[in-house]
Amino acid sequence: MEKELKKFDVAQLAHVEIFTPDPEGTLWFFKELLGLQETAREGQSVYLRGYEDFYHHTLKVTERNEPGLGHISWRASSKEALERRVKELEKSGAGKGWIDGDLGHGAAYQFVTPDNHNMEILWDVDYFQPNESQFTVLNNRPQKRPLTGVPVRRLDHVNLMSSDVTRNKNFMMDELGFRLREHVVRNDGSEIGSWLSVSPLVHELAFMGDASTSEQGLGKLHHVAFWYGFPQHLHDLSEVLTENGIQIEAGPLKHGVSQAMCMYVIEPGGNRVELFADSGYLIFDPDWKPVTWTEEQVERAIIFYGEPLPDTYFKYGTPNVQAPVVNK
Amino acid sequence: MEKELKKFDVAQLAHVEIFTPDPEGTLWFFKELLGLQETAREGQSVYLRGYEDFYHHTLKVTERNEPGLGHISWRASSKEALERRVKELEKSGAGKGWIDGDLGHGAAYQFVTPDNHNMEILWDVDYFQPNESQFTVLNNRPQKRPLTGVPVRRLDHVNLMSSDVTRNKNFMMDELGFRLREHVVRNDGSEIGSWLSVSPLVHELAFMGDASTSEQGLGKLHHVAFWYGFPQHLHDLSEVLTENGIQIEAGPLKHGVSQAMCMYVIEPGGNRVELFADSGYLIFDPDWKPVTWTEEQVERAIIFYGEPLPDTYFKYGTPNVQAPVVNK
Amino acid sequence: MEKELKKFDVAQLAHVEIFTPDPEGTLWFFKELLGLQETAREGQSVYLRGYEDFYHHTLKVTERNEPGLGHISWRASSKEALERRVKELEKSGAGKGWIDGDLGHGAAYQFVTPDNHNMEILWDVDYFQPNESQFTVLNNRPQKRPLTGVPVRRLDHVNLMSSDVTRNKNFMMDELGFRLREHVVRNDGSEIGSWLSVSPLVHELAFMGDASTSEQGLGKLHHVAFWYGFPQHLHDLSEVLTENGIQIEAGPLKHGVSQAMCMYVIEPGGNRVELFADSGYLIFDPDWKPVTWTEEQVERAIIFYGEPLPDTYFKYGTPNVQAPVVNK
Amino acid sequence: MEKELKKFDVAQLAHVEIFTPDPEGTLWFFKELLGLQETAREGQSVYLRGYEDFYHHTLKVTERNEPGLGHISWRASSKEALERRVKELEKSGAGKGWIDGDLGHGAAYQFVTPDNHNMEILWDVDYFQPNESQFTVLNNRPQKRPLTGVPVRRLDHVNLMSSDVTRNKNFMMDELGFRLREHVVRNDGSEIGSWLSVSPLVHELAFMGDASTSEQGLGKLHHVAFWYGFPQHLHDLSEVLTENGIQIEAGPLKHGVSQAMCMYVIEPGGNRVELFADSGYLIFDPDWKPVTWTEEQVERAIIFYGEPLPDTYFKYGTPNVQAPVVNK
Repeated sequence: MEKELKKFDVAQLAHVEIFTPDPEGTLWFFKELLGLQETAREGQSVYLRGYEDFYHHTLKVTERNEPGLGHISWRASSKEALERRVKELEKSGAGKGWIDGDLGHGAAYQFVTPDNHNMEILWDVDYFQPNESQFTVLNNRPQKRPLTGVPVRRLDHVNLMSSDVTRNKNFMMDELGFRLREHVVRNDGSEIGSWLSVSPLVHELAFMGDASTSEQGLGKLHHVAFWYGFPQHLHDLSEVLTENGIQIEAGPLKHGVSQAMCMYVIEPGGNRVELFADSGYLIFDPDWKPVTWTEEQVERAIIFYGEPLPDTYFKYGTPNVQAPVVNK
Repeated sequence: MEKELKKFDVAQLAHVEIFTPDPEGTLWFFKELLGLQETAREGQSVYLRGYEDFYHHTLKVTERNEPGLGHISWRASSKEALERRVKELEKSGAGKGWIDGDLGHGAAYQFVTPDNHNMEILWDVDYFQPNESQFTVLNNRPQKRPLTGVPVRRLDHVNLMSSDVTRNKNFMMDELGFRLREHVVRNDGSEIGSWLSVSPLVHELAFMGDASTSEQGLGKLHHVAFWYGFPQHLHDLSEVLTENGIQIEAGPLKHGVSQAMCMYVIEPGGNRVELFADSGYLIFDPDWKPVTWTEEQVERAIIFYGEPLPDTYFKYGTPNVQAPVVNK
Repeated sequence: MEKELKKFDVAQLAHVEIFTPDPEGTLWFFKELLGLQETAREGQSVYLRGYEDFYHHTLKVTERNEPGLGHISWRASSKEALERRVKELEKSGAGKGWIDGDLGHGAAYQFVTPDNHNMEILWDVDYFQPNESQFTVLNNRPQKRPLTGVPVRRLDHVNLMSSDVTRNKNFMMDELGFRLREHVVRNDGSEIGSWLSVSPLVHELAFMGDASTSEQGLGKLHHVAFWYGFPQHLHDLSEVLTENGIQIEAGPLKHGVSQAMCMYVIEPGGNRVELFADSGYLIFDPDWKPVTWTEEQVERAIIFYGEPLPDTYFKYGTPNVQAPVVNK
Repeated sequence: MEKELKKFDVAQLAHVEIFTPDPEGTLWFFKELLGLQETAREGQSVYLRGYEDFYHHTLKVTERNEPGLGHISWRASSKEALERRVKELEKSGAGKGWIDGDLGHGAAYQFVTPDNHNMEILWDVDYFQPNESQFTVLNNRPQKRPLTGVPVRRLDHVNLMSSDVTRNKNFMMDELGFRLREHVVRNDGSEIGSWLSVSPLVHELAFMGDASTSEQGLGKLHHVAFWYGFPQHLHDLSEVLTENGIQIEAGPLKHGVSQAMCMYVIEPGGNRVELFADSGYLIFDPDWKPVTWTEEQVERAIIFYGEPLPDTYFKYGTPNVQAPVVNK
């Protein structure tokens, strides 16, 4: 039964921390354009959440000399589930140990992926409490829809660049019970990308091969994604971004993989952010067979409709560590 | 651990059977206007599915002298999960026994709710196989988007009328592991409606009090819901329905409960069908506290925005058994 | 040729003035929720415009002890067209004479409809000049899309309540060259409503019978309408209004007349405002035969889909002068 | 006054004829995917219209050995306006003379642009008459919304490739009263593209420089555009096209010029078709100053948001006559 339970032990993506060398620009982007709500500040960090995020925060923005991934936090399904996963992580050698907590949550167990992405798993979380001006008549919404920018609703998923997609994917499946939903596979069997989830979402987590370098252990972020639910908001945001000097990297477009209607943008601090328009398709089949896209199908996997992605999409991540240029 | 597993034992709504006295009208409605695909016919039944439904069928339409619910089929999370649930159902006295299967699935265990709604739970299912003209380049979609009507994507949920919401709700929670997501509660503590799910969806199943009669055991259907994912399709369908003589009962509107953007229509056979525009909000919190709407908040629970629902919404279900009119 | 030119002599709706007893509430509504931009204040008036309105203002909000219509301003097609129309208005007896102008425009000729709605016609207008923070890279847009609320794009049309639809309609057609696009006509030949335009829009101006009183000359406003162009914005605004305590009177819905997807709301000062989601259909046929809806078709004329309009829709206008209640 | 009237003499784009070497493919595309309605067949031609087109047809598809523009038909504002324009065209030397008419319209006066695009101007038109199955309850719509494909509503505009944008533009302005709405101008003063209209639409007609050849008089079509009015339909159509093997050339995207949300596709016969999602912005100002985009602004003029247009967009038109390749 422990084996049966494993795939239910991680419940959700709880929050993500990103680094930024330009906290003012990054906060302006997330608060004024994407309508994220600030819940706290401490030290070099500011804590933010979408208006439908129920917890204290889902995005922690920390000042650092270059952009990148701080850490990713997963919430377990129960206290018992947390204990089961920590026991496994300790055995695996990937565990780094417990921290007491942070603003917004209690004790968390830290670990790293094979490619050195910092993660933690936890159970105790604080719920967001609206102030009077945020109070809503909608009992199932933690606060009013904001009046600023084109407000995102909630954190959706994270995509990580890695030197070895398969190794990182296996780690998340073996140690944390993630299920493989879709992947793009070269003719030699190596994976170009893998999309993993613990829920009907096609992914809370993806790994993408890093086309800029084969160096391992860089812990690079490809993007963090926030959710709108409605396609028009991508059009609205596109106008807002264009008129406010923020470069849209790609989209609005629709991927083949996950059927996501989405767009990509680089925030002023340098990290890539995805905006997600709909819910793509949802996977309820408990016996789901991973969808495989071959090397020949990679173009359709990436773009169902819309223009091809720019080269930067495959090579740029944060921190922006690239292959040394040997010759041109 | 068995207790921990219970809430994961039912994975999804697999299919629904409805009765119709007007099979020609009902099939025209579902096939020509909603774009459902026919996969088989046998005896008095026709088997249909949305173009993103992965199984053999999600809607079975059976000719009968009056409209109503045939049965609801739940898919277990695994063969073991099925066995665990059947053992519980047998103990509860609600079990009716095994059937060998039907077109599209293998052995299923039948049972009834306290209000006599027919249900079954199963593991073995057949997957839809597209023919050449249905083949799609989208590897994660079972077939092409159809060119007929305003095609729905998949089955979403079922709403059942009942004489005692709480008793039916408790049965689904205790025996099958459903979790209570939202409910509307009178000041005397009795429930007007309850929304239950086994996934991040706010509901695959709802129970609503029957305002037309207090008779028990009628096994009445309030509505079966199909999913679009995009608001515009409700507007498109509204035009199509209006111009083709189908009465829209209510909507497009947005409920407070579940934040669903939706509309209701009575199909030619007499059953109510809901069309669901978006995904509302999704519940990933493993420690979700059910959202309670009080008697004073019932109006907002029903309508977040849009006009009030008509009286029929609260009184009409299928079969259309109503309270005998004693005095007026 | 003068007769041929008449129908082209009025070019567009230039601006509307409304009265409000609650200027603070009215301005909060238009600026914070609808994203109107303030361009000037003078005396008891504040001048506003949508972000795609090209002129100095399109809405003038003036403090007064009760809500109502200040005046409606039409722009002529040319200086010559203005002279032609003034000559006719002077002959008709409806003319009131010239004013020197107001903030945002030069000399204007004032006149009244048979039901005493104040209007003016003008040629000289001032164009809006963006400040640095409003500057946009979009050469055909006067300023950036704002980051506040759910911003409307431009003024669209005005609807006036009247004691005699036909008489008011004939005045606008005879003196100003408006063309009748659609009307709802009782079996006795009297008109319930008329929709008039000088452009491919189905209406810049409508007259609706006043179901609350038969008193003449009240100069009542039914609503002033602003334009979004995209249906999702009605859904967004519905959320914003509901969560900010503003009552939605009706919609989102689709009218039969004009095929408008729209909604109605009473602003804090008491005036009705319509929000217009799309462009309905456009009339390019130079030989357009007015569309007639009979008494039997009135329901479909009013609602193509969506719920019936509330009683207030037919009885409430500003100022809210109603029939004296003699007996019930 | 004749000068004043000139700009009102042409009322609208009446219909367009295209040539196709693959009539079966072209008709499948327009009828099954875009939902155009067939109204007649005669000789090598099939006559089609969108479900909100009021006249007998708006698209005539004629079999020919290569794709291209048959002719463009403009409707005058009145019989008198037609006479005035014909008199001017005769004087200009561009006139070719009268034809008796065609299916769906009476006498028409034929002429050519400086670049040899065939055009006609007419007054007498036949209106579409719905059959019983097409009848709609919507009095202002000529027929029901079809149940096939993703149905377009009406013809919108035509874009012509030309060797000399300015010369063609001047011809349409001088002889037919078109007004210049926007243009892209090189630093040497030559025009890259011009957008012209006779109504509040930004264009019923555009001229674009031909980047493939400087040969004159080729009479090339860049694209013919049909109108949806709602952005979601571009997404729906994108799915339908992709799954049915039709290549999307570009979009969905938003142009700077005209603020059009649109996409481009090559129909099986080889002609480019644009699908138009919204109404962009509308021009009601009678004193409109043409919007100029400089050589430095050309990128933003073309794309407000979305990916850059492919090279084919600037070089491919029908018939596909290109510059002889002298050297590479």
